[in-house]
Amino acid sequence: MNAKKIFKNPKIAVIAGDGIGKEVMPEGVRALEAANRKFGIGMQFDHFDFASCDYYLKHGKMMPDDWFDTLMKYDAIFFGAVGMPDILPDHVSLWGSLIQFRRGFDQYVNLRPVRLLPGVPCPLANRKPGDIDFFVVRENTEGEYSSVGGKMFPDTDREFVIQESIFTRQGVDRILQYAFDLAQSRPKKHLTSATKSNGIAITMPYWDERVEAMSKKFADVRTDKYHIDILAAHFVMNPDRFDVVVASNLFGDILSDLGPACTGTIAVAPSGSINPEGKFPSLFEPVHGSAPDIYGKMIANPIGQIWSGAMMLDHLGYPEAGNAIFSAIEKVLAVGPGHAPLTPDLGGTAKTDDLGKAIAAAI
Amino acid sequence: MNAKKIFKNPKIAVIAGDGIGKEVMPEGVRALEAANRKFGIGMQFDHFDFASCDYYLKHGKMMPDDWFDTLMKYDAIFFGAVGMPDILPDHVSLWGSLIQFRRGFDQYVNLRPVRLLPGVPCPLANRKPGDIDFFVVRENTEGEYSSVGGKMFPDTDREFVIQESIFTRQGVDRILQYAFDLAQSRPKKHLTSATKSNGIAITMPYWDERVEAMSKKFADVRTDKYHIDILAAHFVMNPDRFDVVVASNLFGDILSDLGPACTGTIAVAPSGSINPEGKFPSLFEPVHGSAPDIYGKMIANPIGQIWSGAMMLDHLGYPEAGNAIFSAIEKVLAVGPGHAPLTPDLGGTAKTDDLGKAIAAAI
Ligand SMILES: CC(C)[C@H](C(=O)O)[C@@H](O)C(=O)O
Ligand SMILES: CC(C)[C@H](C(=O)O)[C@@H](O)C(=O)O
Repeated sequence: MNAKKIFKNPKIAVIAGDGIGKEVMPEGVRALEAANRKFGIGMQFDHFDFASCDYYLKHGKMMPDDWFDTLMKYDAIFFGAVGMPDILPDHVSLWGSLIQFRRGFDQYVNLRPVRLLPGVPCPLANRKPGDIDFFVVRENTEGEYSSVGGKMFPDTDREFVIQESIFTRQGVDRILQYAFDLAQSRPKKHLTSATKSNGIAITMPYWDERVEAMSKKFADVRTDKYHIDILAAHFVMNPDRFDVVVASNLFGDILSDLGPACTGTIAVAPSGSINPEGKFPSLFEPVHGSAPDIYGKMIANPIGQIWSGAMMLDHLGYPEAGNAIFSAIEKVLAVGPGHAPLTPDLGGTAKTDDLGKAIAAAI
Repeated sequence: MNAKKIFKNPKIAVIAGDGIGKEVMPEGVRALEAANRKFGIGMQFDHFDFASCDYYLKHGKMMPDDWFDTLMKYDAIFFGAVGMPDILPDHVSLWGSLIQFRRGFDQYVNLRPVRLLPGVPCPLANRKPGDIDFFVVRENTEGEYSSVGGKMFPDTDREFVIQESIFTRQGVDRILQYAFDLAQSRPKKHLTSATKSNGIAITMPYWDERVEAMSKKFADVRTDKYHIDILAAHFVMNPDRFDVVVASNLFGDILSDLGPACTGTIAVAPSGSINPEGKFPSLFEPVHGSAPDIYGKMIANPIGQIWSGAMMLDHLGYPEAGNAIFSAIEKVLAVGPGHAPLTPDLGGTAKTDDLGKAIAAAI
């Protein structure tokens, strides 16, 4: 399931972005550099200031016109967070950056592990590490996130807006293929499809059709489906039921915040926006956003960023190094508050960089 | 917030529908009849067999052609559940029944209380009754549930499907008006809007715009908004944060299953599809579906159905009677398993009708 390809001396474009992205990114890089030294990977980092609202304020756009060519020279993008809603509406900042990357670099897989870690307080009753361990595989380029639509009769009582959801056979089949492959590689071999074919009665029955067709090619993968409403409910009631959950762009977005919430905090959750063929750079970033409300205090939890770095190493062909980072995270968390330098969301009083340094030291 | 109108000798159309709808409905009616006698309401019930898959198997359609005129003679519809996916695809059975009612009778408000009840095991750690008590107000006629769209290039590699989301100013403003009114009537006066304007970049920024405009008319209502992904996460992490949550059709659907899941079980959750002006009959039904997997065992929990009856009485102008039913539910639940006849999902061993009878007796 990991990219078969090994990227030699991988070149990484580092984009911290906005808000706490700027605080957690140095910790992500610190962990990567520790792994880089230990495993002799020869990874190189270049930092960029675009894809941020600061850049927008200076240049009137989120990115330079040659962003595509610039970033194509890299093997992967290590990303922090973007968005400063008080300065710039989110749909401007996000569509001017992240969504461009996903489309432009055909990062059609958004991969998000949901795992209950030791030492992270779980909001669900009676769940312990090991009980929750699954992946959300989210389609990342089409579906409900389209830019097709518009407004009619503006500023009148008849005003309305429309927006297309667009599901292509190519787009659906390739994400299903990836998800089924992943399920097949795991011990439980269980795939759950998120649908809503009882209500969203055109695109979602089509999604179901394609899932059924693909499942025929994977006779050894147990396949089921849930409507998104009850599926969200099961994430809370029965999170141990899942192994690989495949979902459309919007449903995957919801499930991959809800899943981490069920495991305690979205601050630790990582994600990869992946072009599995390796034709374009893939992007790795924490699930959390720029969190303007806590920015500036250095209390942001850097684990989402650091774990994203581990996923990136895995993708680049260095699973051992990725595992070393992940184990270091687990090791520090397991020590627990009072002893390990944990950030406030984990019950500690440490700063972002204290936790980052402890993890880097444990690698 | 309750309909100001009092319906004299209200006429109720009872539609049990499919699956466990047929098992819980008699208990819903039993409770209503107890309240009817006690409060001298003069409510009358007529039963109908349409809007069910059984009806479809006999007649090749979900409802008779004159369903609209037939049901217009009633003050409200008391509904069980519909859908037998093994027999008929959900999008056929649902669009042929429930969705027709919502549109035809302009039931533009879907109102769903989310409340942690005594005696219901809560999947969240450290939450007790009183901690969770809010409403999801869902738009119920438009938005993502449109029937506009289709397929192109069928059965080829270029195949794709599209579906419009449609948000009208009228449709958005009236649901916001209802939700703000409701928030204003409650002690906390707090309204949360579910959005996704950072990703769904045409319709959702419009939704935000209308929320902002409406909030100007309700200066005493504290208003905030969350993107649906992080909002779902907060339902798990901070359910005590909410008072009235207003959402589009799809987001409301998800949140109103997720909310009840966070309070223990969707089996107890009620809902009303309401035409606030009372021009058309409103419909009251449990949030759960027809649950073919447990149908036939008489183990379905009838509380969602019974509580829906309480909401219906409230809507018809009999809040005291509605409260009497709700208090009876609380009273029986508080006794707890071992003593009260609770269904298996509540930790008991009782049958559907045992629990229904106990609640009716407590009214
Ligand atoms: C059955 C389905 C069409 C329906 C919906 O999505 O509206 C149900 O989930 C609900 O919430 O009432
Ligand atoms: C910021 C936003 C556009 C983005 C998304 O919805 O895709 C984010 O929530 C995510 O999950 O990466």
